[in-house]
Amino acid sequence: MELFSDRLLEAIARKGAPICIGMDPITEMLPDAVLNRFRRNGHVDGEAAVDAIFEFTTRILKVVAEHTPIVKFQSAYFEQFMSEGVEAYYSLIQEASELDLLVIGDVKRGDIGSTVAAYAAGHLAEQTGEDYQEIATPDAITVNPMLGLDTIQPFVDTARTFQKGLFILVRTSNPGSAKLQDVKLADGRTWSEMLADELRPITESHGLVGVSGYSSIGAVVGATQPHTMVSIRQRLPKSIFLLPGYGAQGATAEMTKAAFTDGKGAIISASRSILYAHRDKKYSDKFADNWEKCVEQAALDMRQDVRQVLGY
Amino acid sequence: MELFSDRLLEAIARKGAPICIGMDPITEMLPDAVLNRFRRNGHVDGEAAVDAIFEFTTRILKVVAEHTPIVKFQSAYFEQFMSEGVEAYYSLIQEASELDLLVIGDVKRGDIGSTVAAYAAGHLAEQTGEDYQEIATPDAITVNPMLGLDTIQPFVDTARTFQKGLFILVRTSNPGSAKLQDVKLADGRTWSEMLADELRPITESHGLVGVSGYSSIGAVVGATQPHTMVSIRQRLPKSIFLLPGYGAQGATAEMTKAAFTDGKGAIISASRSILYAHRDKKYSDKFADNWEKCVEQAALDMRQDVRQVLGY
Repeated sequence: MELFSDRLLEAIARKGAPICIGMDPITEMLPDAVLNRFRRNGHVDGEAAVDAIFEFTTRILKVVAEHTPIVKFQSAYFEQFMSEGVEAYYSLIQEASELDLLVIGDVKRGDIGSTVAAYAAGHLAEQTGEDYQEIATPDAITVNPMLGLDTIQPFVDTARTFQKGLFILVRTSNPGSAKLQDVKLADGRTWSEMLADELRPITESHGLVGVSGYSSIGAVVGATQPHTMVSIRQRLPKSIFLLPGYGAQGATAEMTKAAFTDGKGAIISASRSILYAHRDKKYSDKFADNWEKCVEQAALDMRQDVRQVLGY
Repeated sequence: MELFSDRLLEAIARKGAPICIGMDPITEMLPDAVLNRFRRNGHVDGEAAVDAIFEFTTRILKVVAEHTPIVKFQSAYFEQFMSEGVEAYYSLIQEASELDLLVIGDVKRGDIGSTVAAYAAGHLAEQTGEDYQEIATPDAITVNPMLGLDTIQPFVDTARTFQKGLFILVRTSNPGSAKLQDVKLADGRTWSEMLADELRPITESHGLVGVSGYSSIGAVVGATQPHTMVSIRQRLPKSIFLLPGYGAQGATAEMTKAAFTDGKGAIISASRSILYAHRDKKYSDKFADNWEKCVEQAALDMRQDVRQVLGY
């Protein structure tokens, strides 16, 4: 088994673009063609909603599998349906793996160290052997580092043991992120820059940097934040950047260029602009009620856009 | 239905001490008297482990219900067992409610705003009506604010709608927290002090401050961090502080005094030092193999210690 970073770079080379498609299944945004099969008295109730998002996501995975190296599951949209949603989350991770897709679990977990070990066991470790049912876990997860670098360590250790990856939040894509993350410290750095500096030795530590030169400990840097991309890239030279915010959050491929070196070292992520392409006139006019064709075309358009801007 | 803050203050008055007992069920630390019933071939496998932590936690809840106003469930120890663990988590919240205990879900969730709405739906909203099975959710949850104040808002709105509460991480209890949270900003405040200042208007906003004068939007401030307690207390005068770190993490009741005003405004939380009191010679010598007696005595000792230090 190779390191996560090497597997990701190989998958990007094979699929032809450094993109990630996010699975954010939101019941009320699903195509009618899916929802109608789950309505009772005109209504999709809780249990049927889990079945609907399961079917929708399964079909999306099949449509995009050829075109993207990796997908990202947003845990919140599954946790919303409590244990049944969580069961669907792990089943869909298995489906994605069988389609030769790498998987990021977007869980943004963080806690004190002893607790993080338990999160790492459930979300990242491979649970084989007599202790557990064999349930597929993601190839990588997102992690929230606010509590401190000591609390990241159990995640890092688990990633090392199982050749998995992490994407640690460094600079997020949302509008209100600047106030807490770009705030200037007494030494002139921003809080995120200081965080990146603190993370660097961890990302470059034993057993984590692959033959590709990249580390399995990556960083989340919002594609919407071009002003700080150069600085964070310099501070974390070996980390693969996960760049959310393309599409629905307003970022373009152009805005992410500073994250890449020779077209490598980052993945641009889009969720809603791909999953709900059937609601975009540009696609629905062309493919009428065929929502899967809309999704496929949106994925292909993103792929082409990213390839062109990065000179693939 | 009253606001969470008022319900919590009433429960504290009724039970006689501002304490919280944390449910951190760790399989390998459970008493043999519980574990033995779940061993097969000398081993507690995954499915049996969920049953074991369920039984252990149920019995703990019954032992402590008389002595504490509120309990805190650490989600990680349930998520470790995936959907089955999550099912146990919600069932145990129901059990706690039936024992007249208020419940904090220690989930430390945080994400961009649209995603946070989904987390709020699964972890805090009351899911009644035909859309959902009726599953009990916690009275309050812990929240990670690193992404920005905009991302807190869906949690705040849900808390307001359902008279629930939040405890927002402001200054955590772990050893490595200082580097990221006590770091000095250009304006002289620490990062946590700035965060507290930004949170204040949210905590005091419409519909959140109860007749007690306290807000349902509280803050997590590690009991291990007395050096910054006065400053954060001044910046968030209406927030109830959740103070983890008593006991196993080394904090004493004395170290938390600055969080309280006339014995009010905070709750001191302990987990492992109570749950695993049977491993502490001080208790096991006295109560031999009766682990529930050990737990009860540890809870009573904590209660008495806190009452004495706060002048109850």
